[in-house]
This record gives sequence, C-alpha cells and structure tokens, in this order.
Amino acid sequence: MAQRQLHLGVFTYPGGHHIAGWRHPSVDATSILGYDYYRRTAITAERGKFDLLFVGDMLAAREKDGRVLAQGALNNIDSISITSAVSGATERLGFVATLSTTYNEPFAIAERFASLDHITGGRSGWNIITTANDDAALNFSRKSHMEKSLRYERAKEFVDICKGLWDGWADDAVSADAAGGVFVDPAKVREIDHKGQFFAVKGALDLPRSPQGWPVLVQAGGSPSGLEFAAMVGETIFAAQGKRDEAIKFRNAVRARMPVYGRDPGLLRILPGLVPIMGATEKEALEKEKMLNELLHPAVGIWMLSEQMDFRLYDYPQDGPLPTAEIRATGKAFTPRVVSLMDRADREGLTVHQCGVLVAASRSHGSVVGTPEQIADHMQLWLDEGACDGFNIMPAYFHDEFDLFVDQVIPILQRRGIYRTEYEGTTLRDHLGLPKPQRR
Amino acid sequence: MAQRQLHLGVFTYPGGHHIAGWRHPSVDATSILGYDYYRRTAITAERGKFDLLFVGDMLAAREKDGRVLAQGALNNIDSISITSAVSGATERLGFVATLSTTYNEPFAIAERFASLDHITGGRSGWNIITTANDDAALNFSRKSHMEKSLRYERAKEFVDICKGLWDGWADDAVSADAAGGVFVDPAKVREIDHKGQFFAVKGALDLPRSPQGWPVLVQAGGSPSGLEFAAMVGETIFAAQGKRDEAIKFRNAVRARMPVYGRDPGLLRILPGLVPIMGATEKEALEKEKMLNELLHPAVGIWMLSEQMDFRLYDYPQDGPLPTAEIRATGKAFTPRVVSLMDRADREGLTVHQCGVLVAASRSHGSVVGTPEQIADHMQLWLDEGACDGFNIMPAYFHDEFDLFVDQVIPILQRRGIYRTEYEGTTLRDHLGLPKPQRR
Repeated sequence: MAQRQLHLGVFTYPGGHHIAGWRHPSVDATSILGYDYYRRTAITAERGKFDLLFVGDMLAAREKDGRVLAQGALNNIDSISITSAVSGATERLGFVATLSTTYNEPFAIAERFASLDHITGGRSGWNIITTANDDAALNFSRKSHMEKSLRYERAKEFVDICKGLWDGWADDAVSADAAGGVFVDPAKVREIDHKGQFFAVKGALDLPRSPQGWPVLVQAGGSPSGLEFAAMVGETIFAAQGKRDEAIKFRNAVRARMPVYGRDPGLLRILPGLVPIMGATEKEALEKEKMLNELLHPAVGIWMLSEQMDFRLYDYPQDGPLPTAEIRATGKAFTPRVVSLMDRADREGLTVHQCGVLVAASRSHGSVVGTPEQIADHMQLWLDEGACDGFNIMPAYFHDEFDLFVDQVIPILQRRGIYRTEYEGTTLRDHLGLPKPQRR
Repeated sequence: MAQRQLHLGVFTYPGGHHIAGWRHPSVDATSILGYDYYRRTAITAERGKFDLLFVGDMLAAREKDGRVLAQGALNNIDSISITSAVSGATERLGFVATLSTTYNEPFAIAERFASLDHITGGRSGWNIITTANDDAALNFSRKSHMEKSLRYERAKEFVDICKGLWDGWADDAVSADAAGGVFVDPAKVREIDHKGQFFAVKGALDLPRSPQGWPVLVQAGGSPSGLEFAAMVGETIFAAQGKRDEAIKFRNAVRARMPVYGRDPGLLRILPGLVPIMGATEKEALEKEKMLNELLHPAVGIWMLSEQMDFRLYDYPQDGPLPTAEIRATGKAFTPRVVSLMDRADREGLTVHQCGVLVAASRSHGSVVGTPEQIADHMQLWLDEGACDGFNIMPAYFHDEFDLFVDQVIPILQRRGIYRTEYEGTTLRDHLGLPKPQRR
C-alpha cells in the first residue's frame, strides 16, 4: 500500500493563533490587518506546497464590556473577499473561506462560491459554519440565535440547495459559438424548484458550472450534530481534537458514519488544528512558549474560556479551580474540546487562569512545542496511527513562525516521503485527492 | 474658475455592452468569462487613468423560455469577489461593486464593503441597487418581489445602518501598542443600536474603520424614487440619460434636491453611461455599428425591450409600430429611459424591432458613433453644458473597443485639458474629488 500523504492547510489569523502573538517582538503590530499580510502568508504557503489557506469568519465583534477588544488583535475581514484578493498572487494554493448557513441565503452563497471557484480556477473551498456566537443574532434583525439542532437542520437544507444550483449548468453548457450565435445551450441549464422547511428557491445561477463543480465542502463542528453533518456533507474536516486518542476516535466515528449517507470514507480528509511552537532546541521552543504566555493578558484568557464554555467565569477567583461541576450542571451541549478541557482540569487540578492560558495559547487546538524534528515526529505519528489526514497549521504568530515551519518542518516531511515536493494538479480537489462531483 | 475635469468609469460586462458584442470577430468568445478577462480590463483602465471600474449584479438568471440565454453572453460573477481579485493587479484604479439592499442584510454588506475598502487601500465604491428583477424574489424564499417605494424605504434604512457601522470605529481606534498590550482603544469603538421598520441591528463591526471611512456611495436609479434616494445618499450617479437636454435636466434636478438633505451639490458626480463605437473615419465607425446590429438576434432585442418596459412584446409584429399607447395604458411607473424611448418611437415611427435594436445595442444608454475626435467632442460638450461630470464608458465589446478608447480618445481629452494625465491621489474619493466622511 502506498504511503499515506499529509495534507496541509494554514489558518490565517491577524496576529497569529496565540492570542498574544501580535505582541511578539518580531511582529510589526501595525501591519497585521489587511491585504499585504494575507498575501504574504499565501505566497509562503504556496512555497511550502500547502493544500490550502484557511480564513475564518465571525458575525459579531468579540467584545465583552470593553476588556478584551483592547488586548486581542481582532479583525473580521470578509473571508471570500480576502481569499479572492490574494488568490491572484498564487497559482496552485487552494483557498477555504468561511460563511454561515444561519445568517445567509443559499442562492447568494452558491453564487459567491461559484464565483470564487471561477476566479481561482478551481481552488476554492467553503467552510460551512452554523455560527455559535449568540451576538450574531442581534446584528441580523433576529430576536434570538437559532437553537443548535435547528441550525444544523437549516444547514443541511442550505447545502442541498447550493448543490442543486451548482449542478444547474452542465459542464459543457457554454458553447460560445459566435458564428452560430449560440452562447449557451438552454437544454443544458436546469432550474431548481426547491420548497423546504427553511427555504423556497426557484431558479438557476447566472453563472456557468465552476471548474471544481462545487467548492470543496469543509466542516468544523465536533459536536454530535456537527459529526452527523460532517458524515453527511463534509469532504474535509477542520477538527479540534488535541489528543491523539481522541482524534483517532473522532476520525473513526465520522468515517464509520459516512456509509449511512452512501459516502465512501476514503473521500474525507480530516485536518486537526495544530499550533507548532518551534525552536532550534526543545529548550528554545519552551522559552518561546513561556514568553508568549507571559504576554497574555489574564482577562483575555478568562474571556475566551467563558465564551467557549458559555459560562461566565469573570467573577471566579483566577487562582481557584475551574468550577467544572457548576459548568457541567448547566447541562449545555458541550463541544468535545470543552469536555476534553474540563476532564483535563479535573485530572490535573487546573486553575481558571491556567485553563484560560491553555485556551488562549492555541484557541484550544492541539499544540506541539519543540524542534522542527519533534514537530515532524508528532505529525508523522498522528498520520501513521490514523488520527488525521493532515493538519491545519495555526502559527502562534505571523510571519516568522510560519516561515520557520515552511523552511524547517516541510523539508523534513518531504524527506520522510509523507508530503509532496511539487503540486501534481491545479485544483484544490486535486491537492486533496477528492474527485470533482458529477452533475446529478 | 478652473476647467472642470471629466471623471471616467469603465463598466465591465462579459462580451461587452452591445448584446451581440461577444459575436464580433475580434472577440474570443470562450475567454469572456472569468478572472483574466476582468484583470485585463482593469489594467487597461488604469493605463487610461480611469477613476473606476464598475461591475453590476443580477440576482436571477436572465432567461425567458430558453430563447435568450442561448444568444446572450450571461455571467453574474459576484461583483465584490471579482473586484477584490483584480484589485491586486492595479495600484490606483477604483472599484465599484453592486449589491442589492432588497436581498441582503446591512451588517453583512457593511462588513463586505469595509473589507473591500481595506483590501484595496481605499479604492472601493458601492453601487446601491434595490433590484428591479421580479424573479429574484423566487431565489430568495420570498413570495413576491417587494414593491418599489417599499424597496427604497428599505434601502434608506439599510444605508443608514451601514453608515452607523462604518462610523463605529474611530479612525485612530487601533493603537497596536504591543508593549502596552493594547491593540484597540475600546472607548473609540461604538456599537449601534438600531431599531427600524425593516431591521434591528445592535453591534459593531469586527473591523477597523476603512481608509475611505465609507465606500463611495453610488446609485443608478433614475425614477422619481431613485432621484430622491440619489439626492439623499448618492455621491456618484451612474445615469442613463442618452440625450443631452434630458441629462442636463436630470443633473439639475438631483443637485437642486440635495440641499433638502443638508448636502452640497458640489459633492456629487454624475456619470451617464456611454457606448462609444469608434472608427478611423465616421464611415468606418458606422460600418462597425451596422455589423454589430446585424449580429444581433431579433429575439434578444424584443426580450430586452419587454423586460425594460415590463410589457410582453413577444406576440406583436416585429415590423409594426411599438404599441406605446397600450404600454402607457398599463399606468406603470416608467423609468426616464423608457419614457424617452417611447417618445422617440412615437416621434420617429419606430418599429418593435428597431426599438429592440436600440435597447440591445447600448442597453438603452447613450451611444456615439464616430471618430475618436467626435467621441471627445461629444464628451466635452456634455461636460461644458453641465449634462454630466464624466461618463461610465460601456465598450460595445472587449477588449479591442476599450483599448481603442484608451489609446485614442483619452489622449485627446488630455490634450484638451479636461482629463488627468496622472493620478493625483490614491483613493477613489481622491480621484472623484469627494471628501472622506467625518465619523459622526
């Protein structure tokens, strides 16, 4: 059997994924927002033969009583616009943009991703989110945020409509026959006529089928509803399991569930987030981590923790234990990463502050601190043990940490024969080894 | 008094603005959709020192029983995505993207245009439309398209919310003080708390104020509601008057109305659409026009006419007179360009087919056929007589006709001292001579 290969994404984020990353001395904090910042990351990613660059989305300013906005480098540049913009600076790199099914309309989203796929020549992916932030509702004229299971119901219907619209035009519908005066063969364009629980859509896109047919469908939720949705529609999963055994369990669970929907488990790529903190020696890497954690304002960690657990921790003593019993008693549907953190807090007796640091340092994704060789060992082990199909790399800060990864970790992975040395195809589906969907 | 200067936009459109333009022998019809096509136009526009590149938007495929789709080169690539994408290939050119207030949410649009303004370094404009195409409703889960006066009420509230969001962050809210750990001064970020007839929005953008503060607000409707809206919010108007006296009247009317809203008429740029058909001699230009009109499929003209007049003309004899009495008897609120066309049809005894050709050849905007010198004369006369502040150039086909305009008409305008020879500023507001809005 051929050696399985790693697939890599880079998750861009202003200032980096360590929430205090923007304060690192190597970072010019005035330059972390905007076009040049993303373009540079894209060019570096392509140099490292990455499958994709990933951009997230938030639908509300992440502020709580003014405390946090001050200390975090926030920015919510529109994910499709920024990926469109920087795509022109690259030739092969894929681009995954994030948009919510809870606060958008399927026709508009289908059109936007078809456009992105045309613009990039088939290098687009859609990270489908249902939006967990309650505050978004207030920005969108809703009385309240939709309840989770309903959000996933809506997401399923939403994606189904998009697929219908993307399949509306046959691949060869455009004849562009100037002499005959026929630009499009109308018999090869099909309208949908959808009437469902959430939407009624009757029409066709005013845009030919895009190079990939559909953007690669990416999904990130790890809750039971999220897992079900992933098994049903996900082609790539941005996973959050930070421990190898959890990751193996999660990957097996999604793959096992896919056949229920008539899907082949071989056509799924699971990429857990990974924050690598690197040094020439392990000691140097640990010092870097310590420095970053010291730059972290305690209030930021507590806030991130409160948000993630949906439980206000502001008034608890920072040096007291994380009140896991009280948090569990709320009976909320916790995500796997929250459950995992609570378990660890109980096991290791972590304080509120320590948990805040953990969350803020890696946005609760996996983190490895060590030499490039140690980072590569970690990645290879996860790949070999079936914990993943690759990683979504989340540099603690930009650009130095990402440069370091591309210059020092990538060559090791290549030497070990578990990562490409050249792009073999031109589309994101080519990179990920996913087939172009046949028009139904 | 200093000589008034022309402001120029180029309106991109797959295949060109003559609806049969894509069939011209110089056009490679297989290449008129997508990124490279738009990028080339943007680069040419910047070579011609244009103020802006303009991209439209449709929210439904423009098909009627299959007849038209076959013969027109349709494409509705997302206007913000394509302008984002090509902006990287230019340094000064402005970009105006079109989005509807009827089928979007203000928070999302405010975020998208703030993003575009950041990405382009202050070169963005928003062409605010309310969407006239009834079919759009079917694509957006609406039972019916919103009635016109209601659409404009919604548009006013929509833009007001966007302005509030764009003004949320002070220009100096980002301190990016890494040593002090303060990225943003929370006291300089203000939430809005809007409750209105159509929307309730409580929040702030997660994005600093953009270089221009707001995108340039562009508007295109010429109806009474459109004129009122233009006087209230428009900073640039993409106008449709094809005759000089109508254009003077329209410009005077909007400018006269602005003080009602406390606005200075000097801070408005009116750019009528203009389709120049050029030849080395007038005869050559006329032959080019004739050739294009012969390439036009009659059904396309009748369809465009029916759509524009909201009156089905398919079953009327093509060589009979335009049934203006019957059309007027419907009592619909016709746009100025429809009224103007009906008047002309009565005056000159035009047939249904002839009217169809007129509409299809210039999408009912003004057209001038002649030598570069004659085109320049026309433009100068309109400028001098107060019919416009410039033009939105609508090449009959791409790329030859636009190249011709930039290479041959632009130098004449420059020699006459009515058009810039170099960009003086860096933002679209700089080019148009419009001030950056003060944060309220």
